[in-house]
Amino acid sequence: MNPLKPKPGDALDTLSTPVPVIDEDVMAGNIARVQAYMDRHKIAFRPHIKTHKVVAIAEAQRAAGARGINCQKITEAEIFANAGFDDILITYNILGREKIARLAALNQRLSALKVTADSAVTVDGLAQAFSGSKPLTVLVECDTGGGRCGVQTPTDALALARQITRAEGLTFGGLMTYPKPKSAAAIESWFSEALSLLRAEGIPCPIVSNAGTPSLFEAHEVPSATEHRAGTYVYNDRSMVRAGHCTIDQCAMHILVTVVSCPTEDRAIIDAGSKTLTSDLLGFSDYGHILEYPDAVIRALSEEHGTVDLSRCSGPRPKIGDRLRIVPNHTCVVSNLFDEMIFHRVGRVTRIEPVAARGMVW
Amino acid sequence: MNPLKPKPGDALDTLSTPVPVIDEDVMAGNIARVQAYMDRHKIAFRPHIKTHKVVAIAEAQRAAGARGINCQKITEAEIFANAGFDDILITYNILGREKIARLAALNQRLSALKVTADSAVTVDGLAQAFSGSKPLTVLVECDTGGGRCGVQTPTDALALARQITRAEGLTFGGLMTYPKPKSAAAIESWFSEALSLLRAEGIPCPIVSNAGTPSLFEAHEVPSATEHRAGTYVYNDRSMVRAGHCTIDQCAMHILVTVVSCPTEDRAIIDAGSKTLTSDLLGFSDYGHILEYPDAVIRALSEEHGTVDLSRCSGPRPKIGDRLRIVPNHTCVVSNLFDEMIFHRVGRVTRIEPVAARGMVW
Repeated sequence: MNPLKPKPGDALDTLSTPVPVIDEDVMAGNIARVQAYMDRHKIAFRPHIKTHKVVAIAEAQRAAGARGINCQKITEAEIFANAGFDDILITYNILGREKIARLAALNQRLSALKVTADSAVTVDGLAQAFSGSKPLTVLVECDTGGGRCGVQTPTDALALARQITRAEGLTFGGLMTYPKPKSAAAIESWFSEALSLLRAEGIPCPIVSNAGTPSLFEAHEVPSATEHRAGTYVYNDRSMVRAGHCTIDQCAMHILVTVVSCPTEDRAIIDAGSKTLTSDLLGFSDYGHILEYPDAVIRALSEEHGTVDLSRCSGPRPKIGDRLRIVPNHTCVVSNLFDEMIFHRVGRVTRIEPVAARGMVW
Repeated sequence: MNPLKPKPGDALDTLSTPVPVIDEDVMAGNIARVQAYMDRHKIAFRPHIKTHKVVAIAEAQRAAGARGINCQKITEAEIFANAGFDDILITYNILGREKIARLAALNQRLSALKVTADSAVTVDGLAQAFSGSKPLTVLVECDTGGGRCGVQTPTDALALARQITRAEGLTFGGLMTYPKPKSAAAIESWFSEALSLLRAEGIPCPIVSNAGTPSLFEAHEVPSATEHRAGTYVYNDRSMVRAGHCTIDQCAMHILVTVVSCPTEDRAIIDAGSKTLTSDLLGFSDYGHILEYPDAVIRALSEEHGTVDLSRCSGPRPKIGDRLRIVPNHTCVVSNLFDEMIFHRVGRVTRIEPVAARGMVW
């Protein structure tokens, strides 16, 4: 918990820094804009809770029209199940006795729990555990170019779908990918080939799940997909601006920081380091975008200090005590560092929400 | 809290991954070795709690002979003050009404609280707040080459020491630096020049505080320093091995992970991503050292996945379900991601300690 106890009604400029804050109206706009796009294209939309980890925001996404949510870990899914979410897709290979036991308990409570698998080893483990109990729905994860998890070919996807279909305790739920951004044609080609193979064997494939915020507005270019998953769109960040998904004004999260030192003319030190901004570069050469000084470069972070290079700033420069706003490179990882998230509208705190799933890596 | 509730006596290989664990004996060896060095050279040793954020470890460091502790933020200092620590140095420029009010409250409770400042602005703020109340001890932060905070020259240090000495509510406590590693001669030259200037004006300088784990065993080459601060030495990490401070066997923190996918011959996916290892590279080109596969390269992290390149591994390769141990690049930032730290000896959990100061960025 934030021991400084911010409360609704507080003026933003009185909050002790460093602190991430969320603009209510920008966030609401992001939720509405993306849901409208999905509705227009008749794509089921499944927000990934990893970006916010906040129950109230998942509720707002559901109220806007989202169908189900996406979690990455069982412990996250448990938190959202406790809050009343039923249609939860855990996009992870679940292995190990303790995790599978928790998964079985969760499956008993929910009517639409789903997981993914990309290997015979994972499917075997699930099949053994669920044999004789309420069946678990398993989707096959497909590597359509993302280069992380996933079976490598449509033929491999068919083989794993077969194994799931034959396992007594499992139900084949469909195909899922975490794609390389901006690769709609490649994803579509991969999925349609896999779907042909499944059709030829008479294996029904209810869900084809595509994903990603950077390529979100190209979701309709993957007609084989029945649903799209995305997380970052709800807050947006510097990397989404670079990807062309949003403008800087559509970034709902700002990190409020204070200049604590100006040791030289060209160097300012801010009170946000890697414990606030994280070290995620995502291809950038510095650690965030300072709205008030767009030419300033956050060139280094230690845990509690950010070192800002001002040498490219032509106008006036920040002074000790100045408060600045930073658009972070990557918003999801910032959420994971704070127990509470502060929301605001026209300069005043509106609410403080627990980041309920912070730190849930299991 | 870890919802999987590990407990003393559990076998390490039953812990749900990913999870950082601390070897009790390695940690105790690190504490003893460094304290013995400091004792031998009659240097007061002030551990930085940022690495562990655990009260019980600070107590072990004190029991071994440490004099006082180092915190970076007031909220950290509050936690350790509540646990009975009195000699606390907060190495930070404290600015802003709320933080200064908390600092004043803390100063009332402790007999040996100290902070640092590197500008007239910071000193002015403290001087105004502490005028008429129990004086606050302020050290001048000196940039001896580290390139972060700090006055730039010994003459600037003198000027700030003068300002502190003249302020009714402040006491000049000495000089402090966060140095560039391996720069003993430069630090000594900087400090001795500043000390000459202070002596010439009759300003006593009780503390000269040097710091850093990489250069810890060169602390005696800075004879002007009265104390040394260090954090990382207690756990050690991959960057400390590279710096020559320790061997890989002296790294007390391992991250236990599981291989969850092997999509290609050369690619394995582990269940630790940036939410466990953090994205801190510290000059490395990958995200940690896998003890069982020293030639494997953790080439990319997403939040819950680590992508491991096995192409340089000549022998057998990890399989799905295998458990691996990782020495992280940077241990302090891992501590900040977990509510509890698990300790072990000969394969069994010995205790679970709250990471009391996790997330305390204020």
